[in-house]
Amino acid sequence: MVIKGNILYTQDHKTLHTIRNGCLVVHGGVIEKTCTWEEFCASDDSAETIHDYGNQLIIPGMVDLHLHASQFAFCGLGMDRELLDWLAEYAFPEEMKYADMNYAETAYQSFVDTLLHSPTTRACVFATIHKDSSLKLAELMRDAGFAAYIGKVNMDRQSPEGLCEDTARSLADTRDFIETVLSWNCEIKPIITPRFVPSCTDQLMAGLGKLSKEYHLPVQSHLAENPNEVELVKKLNSKAKSYGDAYDMFGLFGSNGPAVMAHCVYPEAAELELMKQNGVFVAHCANSNFSLASGIAPARKYLEQGINMGLGTDIAGGFSISMFRAIQDTISVSKLYWRLRDDGAAPLSFTEAFYLATMGGGRFFGKVGSFLPGYAADILVLDDSREQDASEPDLRKRLERLCYLADSDVVSAKYINGRLVMEKASPSKSCC
Amino acid sequence: MVIKGNILYTQDHKTLHTIRNGCLVVHGGVIEKTCTWEEFCASDDSAETIHDYGNQLIIPGMVDLHLHASQFAFCGLGMDRELLDWLAEYAFPEEMKYADMNYAETAYQSFVDTLLHSPTTRACVFATIHKDSSLKLAELMRDAGFAAYIGKVNMDRQSPEGLCEDTARSLADTRDFIETVLSWNCEIKPIITPRFVPSCTDQLMAGLGKLSKEYHLPVQSHLAENPNEVELVKKLNSKAKSYGDAYDMFGLFGSNGPAVMAHCVYPEAAELELMKQNGVFVAHCANSNFSLASGIAPARKYLEQGINMGLGTDIAGGFSISMFRAIQDTISVSKLYWRLRDDGAAPLSFTEAFYLATMGGGRFFGKVGSFLPGYAADILVLDDSREQDASEPDLRKRLERLCYLADSDVVSAKYINGRLVMEKASPSKSCC
Repeated sequence: MVIKGNILYTQDHKTLHTIRNGCLVVHGGVIEKTCTWEEFCASDDSAETIHDYGNQLIIPGMVDLHLHASQFAFCGLGMDRELLDWLAEYAFPEEMKYADMNYAETAYQSFVDTLLHSPTTRACVFATIHKDSSLKLAELMRDAGFAAYIGKVNMDRQSPEGLCEDTARSLADTRDFIETVLSWNCEIKPIITPRFVPSCTDQLMAGLGKLSKEYHLPVQSHLAENPNEVELVKKLNSKAKSYGDAYDMFGLFGSNGPAVMAHCVYPEAAELELMKQNGVFVAHCANSNFSLASGIAPARKYLEQGINMGLGTDIAGGFSISMFRAIQDTISVSKLYWRLRDDGAAPLSFTEAFYLATMGGGRFFGKVGSFLPGYAADILVLDDSREQDASEPDLRKRLERLCYLADSDVVSAKYINGRLVMEKASPSKSCC
Repeated sequence: MVIKGNILYTQDHKTLHTIRNGCLVVHGGVIEKTCTWEEFCASDDSAETIHDYGNQLIIPGMVDLHLHASQFAFCGLGMDRELLDWLAEYAFPEEMKYADMNYAETAYQSFVDTLLHSPTTRACVFATIHKDSSLKLAELMRDAGFAAYIGKVNMDRQSPEGLCEDTARSLADTRDFIETVLSWNCEIKPIITPRFVPSCTDQLMAGLGKLSKEYHLPVQSHLAENPNEVELVKKLNSKAKSYGDAYDMFGLFGSNGPAVMAHCVYPEAAELELMKQNGVFVAHCANSNFSLASGIAPARKYLEQGINMGLGTDIAGGFSISMFRAIQDTISVSKLYWRLRDDGAAPLSFTEAFYLATMGGGRFFGKVGSFLPGYAADILVLDDSREQDASEPDLRKRLERLCYLADSDVVSAKYINGRLVMEKASPSKSCC
């Protein structure tokens, strides 16, 4: 299969490649070659199908490294609290509703439908503590064609009745969840998901560490989002050397396999060292971090120190499910961080933010988020013809403008692992 | 005329009124009465026309206190510079194009079309130095039915060739512009528009002060947006006691009539006193202030000190023309200001930001931006049926969510001074 159009992708956080009238040669769900259409026609290559998207923009699918599917229903509400109060007043009461399979199915279907039309192709997703509805979410995302890590959430302390699990039961349900999802043998994978340190006893953490090891599963959780939360962790886990160490003690901080930690707004020096050493991924959630008044994560520092990083929408702490918006917000807060916090931390460029939204987060999944040979054929086709500058010769400018101005509905087609999962109108057929 | 639906409006920055199934009784372009539909039907009032908008939300039109129509064409581009470099590299080259009437007419028409479908009903608008194209903008906005102050910009120093006017010519052109627009005797009014202190000699400022006095015209300009700009003003205008004083010396800072100053990110104490004393309006441009890395204006302080304030999109320093987005951004940056700058400055509530976007800015125009009796019948009808919670009983929540999640296309009808200027689909007719 060949996908033809104006191609943009990053190679690293400093390098954006653009190919006017280019094409992606896709084989077995993987990018085989990325070149100009001229080069393709002049080569010995042939293709059974050529999807010609004309003047549209073609970019790698975006990776949302952190969001709560179970909070989608109240997106855009409850933006008047800090983290711990927000959890108690908005997030927890909503998540309790997922004990009801009817509610869960309707709400998760609405989430999946919206995500399908967004720029996101892959995601690390929190469900709730409820095994059955978490499986329903996994099933709906599988059927929609997504590639994702989905976690049944674990909580056995400091949680309201209805969301506070018995430790043994929590672990048993998690094992069931893991085995069921693995049995599908598809692009939806389970991920170990302790909610965050305050919600999990050491006993639960130890059990989750064992499950992670036994099934070779990655881990997702939260780290150092808000000053009050950081204080709470110090109080609750006085034996841990840091917030990160409270995960690391149980092999849940990258030592046994990939781990992604949302937020990381207030990293301690030792923690930073541990993150680097263990290859922990930061899910930088700019929108959530201003919406819940948490602060601004030091993204420039993470980039400079070579710490793994991608972007997260953190629905519904963040109010927008759009990764275009995540790119905007990442850049915007980096400017305020530079101005208000550290004038040594240069604002992030468009290329850097675009890299984070695609390849930065994609690396958590392996060769994902770029169009280099061997990368997963996760492809977005973007129709910016309604913008004023579809005639603009500079492809980077067209993409930048689209990320600032466009709604999700500019996504006109979406491929995941080379498989078409969403298309608004059929492309024309081409031949050389 | 009666407008029927779910009504929301503020009375002051602390009080949001909501009326489920309410109506606005409009007479002579002005709100006569705001009440429930039941009350209306039980009263002796009658109406020739009743526009029934069913379950839709009905709010006052929004007032954009600061934007540059002549920069709309590059919205969403050039977000990688600070103010002075951004002006030189992006804004000034674009504004030069408005010497060409063909370019100006096409670009301004596109601006007006977009603004018409946005939540904005009134605005304070910068054109460029060019008299003829500025008149064209005024004409297009008049024909679209807007109420607005439109300024031909004045610049006679520190400006690139092509945008640097001869002082006498600048004043003569401004007089022509004023007289032509005033002769239309409509809702489009001229406003005195020195670009900002660095661009204007004292001689020009003095002439503009005289024009303001002679024609009883308000003033719009920029104040203390960026630290480098503030330094430049100190260097250029060493006789002025402050940036604000450099306007005040010539009667351009509220002493002779209303003045609105964009940004006010770095106010000095004496300046603040002068603003209070002269009733100067702050146009708080949150998006622009992070996009150009300027900083965050102390909006809470302005509210507490009773300083006049509204919101501005500052197209194209800000990248979004939507006042919904201005509300979001105002709240978001106020949270970061609280967290990073001053934990005594409580984040702005939704009601406060909504007030600023409607009544706060509306006060610059007189009785505008509320549905209290005697206010201009500037009315937005909002269709949030595509959002998940149109069945939500709490009207404030519905509006809040819409401001966070909706695109401009939720505006289904717009009235200015009681006159319908935009409508997507006809409302049904009702009778008691």
